[in-house]
Amino acid sequence: MQPYQEMTGEELLREKKVLEAEYRRYQQRGLQLDMSRGKPSQEQLDLSMGMMDVLTSDMDLACDDGTDCRNYGVLDGIEEAKVLLGDMIECNPDNILIYGNSSLNIMYDTISHSMTHGVMGNTPWCRLDRVKFLCPVPGYDRHFAITEYFGIEMINVPMLPTGPDMDMVEELVAGDEAIKGIWCVPKYSNPQGITYSDGTVRRFARLRPAAKDFRIYWDNAYSVHHLYDIDQDHLIEILKECKRAGNPDLAYKFCSTSKISFPGSGVAAVAASPNNLEDFRRAMKIQTIGHDKVNQLRHVRFFGDIHGITEHMRKHADSLRPKFEMITDTFERELKELAVGSWYTPKGGYFITYETLPGCAKAVVNKARKAGVVLTPAGAPFPYGKDPQDSVIRIAPSYPGLEDLTLATQIFVVCVKLVSIEKILESRQNS
Amino acid sequence: MQPYQEMTGEELLREKKVLEAEYRRYQQRGLQLDMSRGKPSQEQLDLSMGMMDVLTSDMDLACDDGTDCRNYGVLDGIEEAKVLLGDMIECNPDNILIYGNSSLNIMYDTISHSMTHGVMGNTPWCRLDRVKFLCPVPGYDRHFAITEYFGIEMINVPMLPTGPDMDMVEELVAGDEAIKGIWCVPKYSNPQGITYSDGTVRRFARLRPAAKDFRIYWDNAYSVHHLYDIDQDHLIEILKECKRAGNPDLAYKFCSTSKISFPGSGVAAVAASPNNLEDFRRAMKIQTIGHDKVNQLRHVRFFGDIHGITEHMRKHADSLRPKFEMITDTFERELKELAVGSWYTPKGGYFITYETLPGCAKAVVNKARKAGVVLTPAGAPFPYGKDPQDSVIRIAPSYPGLEDLTLATQIFVVCVKLVSIEKILESRQNS
Repeated sequence: MQPYQEMTGEELLREKKVLEAEYRRYQQRGLQLDMSRGKPSQEQLDLSMGMMDVLTSDMDLACDDGTDCRNYGVLDGIEEAKVLLGDMIECNPDNILIYGNSSLNIMYDTISHSMTHGVMGNTPWCRLDRVKFLCPVPGYDRHFAITEYFGIEMINVPMLPTGPDMDMVEELVAGDEAIKGIWCVPKYSNPQGITYSDGTVRRFARLRPAAKDFRIYWDNAYSVHHLYDIDQDHLIEILKECKRAGNPDLAYKFCSTSKISFPGSGVAAVAASPNNLEDFRRAMKIQTIGHDKVNQLRHVRFFGDIHGITEHMRKHADSLRPKFEMITDTFERELKELAVGSWYTPKGGYFITYETLPGCAKAVVNKARKAGVVLTPAGAPFPYGKDPQDSVIRIAPSYPGLEDLTLATQIFVVCVKLVSIEKILESRQNS
Repeated sequence: MQPYQEMTGEELLREKKVLEAEYRRYQQRGLQLDMSRGKPSQEQLDLSMGMMDVLTSDMDLACDDGTDCRNYGVLDGIEEAKVLLGDMIECNPDNILIYGNSSLNIMYDTISHSMTHGVMGNTPWCRLDRVKFLCPVPGYDRHFAITEYFGIEMINVPMLPTGPDMDMVEELVAGDEAIKGIWCVPKYSNPQGITYSDGTVRRFARLRPAAKDFRIYWDNAYSVHHLYDIDQDHLIEILKECKRAGNPDLAYKFCSTSKISFPGSGVAAVAASPNNLEDFRRAMKIQTIGHDKVNQLRHVRFFGDIHGITEHMRKHADSLRPKFEMITDTFERELKELAVGSWYTPKGGYFITYETLPGCAKAVVNKARKAGVVLTPAGAPFPYGKDPQDSVIRIAPSYPGLEDLTLATQIFVVCVKLVSIEKILESRQNS
């Protein structure tokens, strides 16, 4: 194997012919494989089935403090749940509010509340001419969908191996009062699997935004979602770092158990400074009488404490690790020497990103689809769905079984090779 | 007994002395009784404990259509839950969206979304100079808290025995484009227990509001919360009536199982026209990946169908009926002939409203508190907490046991009598 770019036109055409035959054989199999969304597999869901047995009709559904979880009361979460999630995200339980089943919903509500009521007494965003958000790219499509929905202008910030380009972040937030926030998935990022370096987190905590109501939306979605026991990424805890830097109110930290227990039936929370939490509570007490305490109790009884979560995440890792390794091994073996793209090998999280030669991502996704492999639409990890380079493809290894995933990866590789050759031939023709 | 107003000053003073002695005896007992919030009693909560056993680890947590309730997917509720709640509120399952645990939260989100995005393409309310809501009074304090929080101007509309004063409603909505909605609890209303008459519902469906984006917020919180098997109130189904009247988009109908299964751990829903539902879905798909399907399935498995709910509500009624009857019987026996107030005898719901002589409500609530009986703050059932007559007291019979409630009612009666005498004596002095 040698880099495609170094091959002659004839060599490339010969390779293309072989690949096309291989591609057609896959097509003829009428496959239906899905690597598009970060859904846990059935095997992973089965890990949490014990959750269905921890509360039964002959039990007392009361908290340690006597609160009957079945009735109204307790606005922002039972103490036991705050301790459990607090330990999970390295925060004091006093700095946490427990919500419903979805951290995305909390983020949406936070943006919505900032629009109508402003942040900590500042002007509501709906009264401003322009509101902007920084969006490290590639990033999480559903974050970008929220800011787009509220008409917030999104500015791309490139992701580096250390996290977002902090030179750019610092300069932008210092110079523009309209910039009100930044979306971050700081650990095992969606979709690359990058964890922000210590330097990056320290610089985040020391930002000097022009806007007093600028907030870092720190979506710690994969805080305990390691693939390995020892070889884990470490992330500096942002709230303590902000406090240390004299910026206690700078960040909101979101988390949930969606990919720990059951997606959709988990527990979500926000952690922040006392000032910010007061702002959250102000809305919360009007919005609801309280969230699902029985489900909070169910999580507490099932996991017990943070060690229970750690043990549980080991089992998830055992299910996910072979899938991740198969994909990166395949890329290593099949694509590396061809020099037709790059990827980062994550130590956790839910995604792998394959970066094609410029201008190939859409074509690869289309070609894969026509052979029965569904990938996340090209462009999805960018604001407005626009990948300026058309090169980023998000791969979600979790849902299919290893066998299906292996097949899907082989098809993906064939598509990458084919599209890369076509691209190279095309660019040679044009030059 | 004769009406206090017809007694001489001397007779009143004699009566007052006896009552004061009685009041002091209660005070000395150091009681702590709570008739303030509409919380189910422990006995009622126990009725739903079977819900903890219907899903177990050896079961398949899948819907009839094969959807695994444990995973992501299904934005607006599993089909079985739509059928169950649809039957409960007399709507086609296609016209229902299932949300999280709280209908109040849906209402808050609906107002919030109308502020930021407008209703069905109309101007977002946050861009308007003034937005107003009609508030039938007395009404539900948490409704009013939402509109107040969003800076929406609230206009009182008196409740009649047939529902809101429709002459006033019709005139106001026709003449003022700033009026965007009305809060309604149409069946066994909070706090009076009144069910809107057929004529009232028909007039609602035929409103001709100046504002195209005017909506009736039809909070059908007590649709199946009857106290009696036979002697039940009937409410015309609003959405069908709106459609019949050529106003299909006029109403949103909210419901939940909060006072059917467990408050805070139930399932909430909205029913509306296809146009309105599209508007709801537009926000929903940005706000969340989906609500708690496992809990939806739990409700479906526990209740089975509408007959299961009906049977279940009979048990709630058996618990609530003696409490409601004790209170209205006591009022009948102790207060009626004195002519110091009025009340409506509800056939369902969660509250009884006692209307004192003008200017007495706050004093009664204070006096009761000093004898250890907590009542909903006077004024609470009114926008901005202001009861113009200072005469409405909401009584919540559900939470205390019958014995405690009987004692609390006796104390309440003594307080009403005492405050009424004081008021009458005072007004005689002033005239």
